[in-house]
Amino acid sequence: MKPAIPQGTRDFDATTIYKRAYILDIIKEQFVLHGFEPLETPAFERLETLMGKYGEEGDKLIFKILNNGLDKKENLDAVRQNFENVLSGKNDGKITQRALKYDLTIPFARYVAMNYGKLAMPLKRFQIQNVWRADRPQKGRYREFTQCDADIVGSASLLNEIELANIYKSVFEKLNTPVEICINNRKVLTALSDLCGPENAMTDLAIAIDKLDKIGLEKVLEELRKRNFSEDAISIVEEYLSTQNLQSNEEKIEKITALLGDIEQGKEGIQELQTVLDSCPYLNIDFTLARGLDYYTGSIFEVKPTDVKIGSIGGGGRYDDLTSLFGLKDSVAGVGISFGVDRIYDVLEESNRFPEKISDRPSVLLANFGNEYNTDLLKIAKQVRNANISCTLFPDAKKIDKQFKYANRKGFDFILLFGDDEKEKNTVQIKNLDNGEQFNCPLKEAIEIISKT
Amino acid sequence: MKPAIPQGTRDFDATTIYKRAYILDIIKEQFVLHGFEPLETPAFERLETLMGKYGEEGDKLIFKILNNGLDKKENLDAVRQNFENVLSGKNDGKITQRALKYDLTIPFARYVAMNYGKLAMPLKRFQIQNVWRADRPQKGRYREFTQCDADIVGSASLLNEIELANIYKSVFEKLNTPVEICINNRKVLTALSDLCGPENAMTDLAIAIDKLDKIGLEKVLEELRKRNFSEDAISIVEEYLSTQNLQSNEEKIEKITALLGDIEQGKEGIQELQTVLDSCPYLNIDFTLARGLDYYTGSIFEVKPTDVKIGSIGGGGRYDDLTSLFGLKDSVAGVGISFGVDRIYDVLEESNRFPEKISDRPSVLLANFGNEYNTDLLKIAKQVRNANISCTLFPDAKKIDKQFKYANRKGFDFILLFGDDEKEKNTVQIKNLDNGEQFNCPLKEAIEIISKT
Repeated sequence: MKPAIPQGTRDFDATTIYKRAYILDIIKEQFVLHGFEPLETPAFERLETLMGKYGEEGDKLIFKILNNGLDKKENLDAVRQNFENVLSGKNDGKITQRALKYDLTIPFARYVAMNYGKLAMPLKRFQIQNVWRADRPQKGRYREFTQCDADIVGSASLLNEIELANIYKSVFEKLNTPVEICINNRKVLTALSDLCGPENAMTDLAIAIDKLDKIGLEKVLEELRKRNFSEDAISIVEEYLSTQNLQSNEEKIEKITALLGDIEQGKEGIQELQTVLDSCPYLNIDFTLARGLDYYTGSIFEVKPTDVKIGSIGGGGRYDDLTSLFGLKDSVAGVGISFGVDRIYDVLEESNRFPEKISDRPSVLLANFGNEYNTDLLKIAKQVRNANISCTLFPDAKKIDKQFKYANRKGFDFILLFGDDEKEKNTVQIKNLDNGEQFNCPLKEAIEIISKT
Repeated sequence: MKPAIPQGTRDFDATTIYKRAYILDIIKEQFVLHGFEPLETPAFERLETLMGKYGEEGDKLIFKILNNGLDKKENLDAVRQNFENVLSGKNDGKITQRALKYDLTIPFARYVAMNYGKLAMPLKRFQIQNVWRADRPQKGRYREFTQCDADIVGSASLLNEIELANIYKSVFEKLNTPVEICINNRKVLTALSDLCGPENAMTDLAIAIDKLDKIGLEKVLEELRKRNFSEDAISIVEEYLSTQNLQSNEEKIEKITALLGDIEQGKEGIQELQTVLDSCPYLNIDFTLARGLDYYTGSIFEVKPTDVKIGSIGGGGRYDDLTSLFGLKDSVAGVGISFGVDRIYDVLEESNRFPEKISDRPSVLLANFGNEYNTDLLKIAKQVRNANISCTLFPDAKKIDKQFKYANRKGFDFILLFGDDEKEKNTVQIKNLDNGEQFNCPLKEAIEIISKT
């Protein structure tokens, strides 16, 4: 049998893990400094927790888990009969009752609804976990990937938006990566829909506008025509979208105020934008920003790198009430942001912005000349490790050139050698694998040299 | 719909996550100091990678993932016809082609086999990830839990066993938890099986002996009788197991040498034990230690806490050749250990051994008296965070007693207040929530006080 990894998934080796940790540690640090607390939810949820929350397309991409014990005789007939029902959504639980989580938001909403009475509000949580989608794999799109979210629920204050925007700013500054952080407000889009669209066309409008970058203006308008937008409506949408060509936030707000400022939702949305901008002048208004997801109701965010073409590397927004999905009577307003960790990784890689030395701990290979030295070698290794240095004791007494080759291949900083000579003189031989320097000295001195590197 | 979490799974809140991180950081630190590098593999593997590797019982506990797109008409008939076949192991891939990983060892073996040419040997990897088993949930047994493994492959040297034993010792010392680290060698068990058992009875013998702690001597012997062990054989096994009552390693080795020292495998096993013991005198020989898994061939380990009754909290051993499962021609010997993170958590909890303050970063709630202070509050929060202090800006201008209640409930160390008085005097009011001290001072001074806590 030839070993293989499932399509769309990856093994992460040490270098990749340390590079990912570099990104995640910077994000986590900002989350914690801003008062967010970690949460982890299971890899799978009950099927009914997830189904119907991500639209028709989303439902299809959810990985469902087969019930166990299905091969028992008494289950089989029922299962066979029910198979079609089960898979087309009329789920009686006979085949599948669990599914891998598709995002972190719905499991978080489930957590809040389940524990509502016990949680002090506002609740600020961050969550960094894998999610799974049965998407067709392609460059930069995986079936298992990491989401990295921070949300505040139980508060409608715009201070939350301001703090989240500041987190975006701090993180990408620390990552040394220039980005454009865009903001819009769903209320403005609602106003546009109310002004010109057919009834309840807000979702259609948002979904169409969301594709602007990918498919271009003409195709967006075409899609709206198909969704029963009149020609008058289309020309208003066109005018709305033309704000993209204006330079400053002020010009954009001026134009949109003229277009939608008389509509209640429009006025509110513009005012909210203005409040956030007053504290976060670095934000760019982008009225063509729509975000695909249904549940946003206020501010929406998106982050793009300015010097790498890769699309969005972060996004989020305000939602009025996610927990009502789970029957909670109190409405729990919230706002959240998300970092696209896998894409940020690609951006740093492509723009060469990972630090040169990703692990700050020096590493040493301790060469092995035979079993007779074991006791000494174990003592040396212990002392080296006590100085907080990573030390690999080469386990077999292979030829020394093989051990050197190994040290170079694995990228060790130093190699330490201990044979009869050193035993007699009570020293070690140390070689710096970066510059080739090699000499004898007491172990203590060698440890100092390594620590200072 | 009432929200619920799948049976056998858990949400981890901040306190639990920080406590788990306390354990995992100590383990990771030792892995890294000993030269192990991290690896991560996907949550799911191809079904054929996992099936047949964990015995019949194991296969049943593997969570299988439904293929997507099954509800297409053209798939349905075939699927219905094949359902019985598919679920009873004659898998044609029509219903399921993927499964959640059941442990970290087989995915690691798959990784090594897949990348063999590219990997420098010996390879020292550690892996800390979740695994999933469709076991019946009970106290301390979950369907999603964390495994934490370190393995060295590509070396047969006993130095590896010694280093791994030393890792066990260091970790539990750092965790301040007294443990008994037991060692045995499968070769000794093989010798016992060769001496007295029916042909190829080694696995039966190991599985039966493995249950000694749970079911007692009589039932172990009964099981062996069922497995065609003769009465003579049974009495030899009984004598073998009676070494459990001896106190010292020396006495045990003496007795087993008398019993099995003339058999080649027995001699080797005893010699290997002796070599490891010479460097690790803290180990306890336990000849009744068997370990359930098939693939062990040499040293085996098990760790138990000495003052909490919970069974094993770590285990491992040497295997001759795991990668042959995946068609690799070169035989890749290896040895590994594992930490039972969830159980170690329970031990620390039960014995009250978690540090009192689990997060070493002070936390501050910045009270909110209304929108007119927003600009000042954001500036204050920024300065506090720049000093590496976690700061939560209360987002809504709720009544101050509500904000205090929130601060106490969430366990903040300090609360900072900033109103008209403070604005005028260019100060903040600081209250230490531990001792109740409260006074006015410049922000800089407040930050110093908080940092020193």
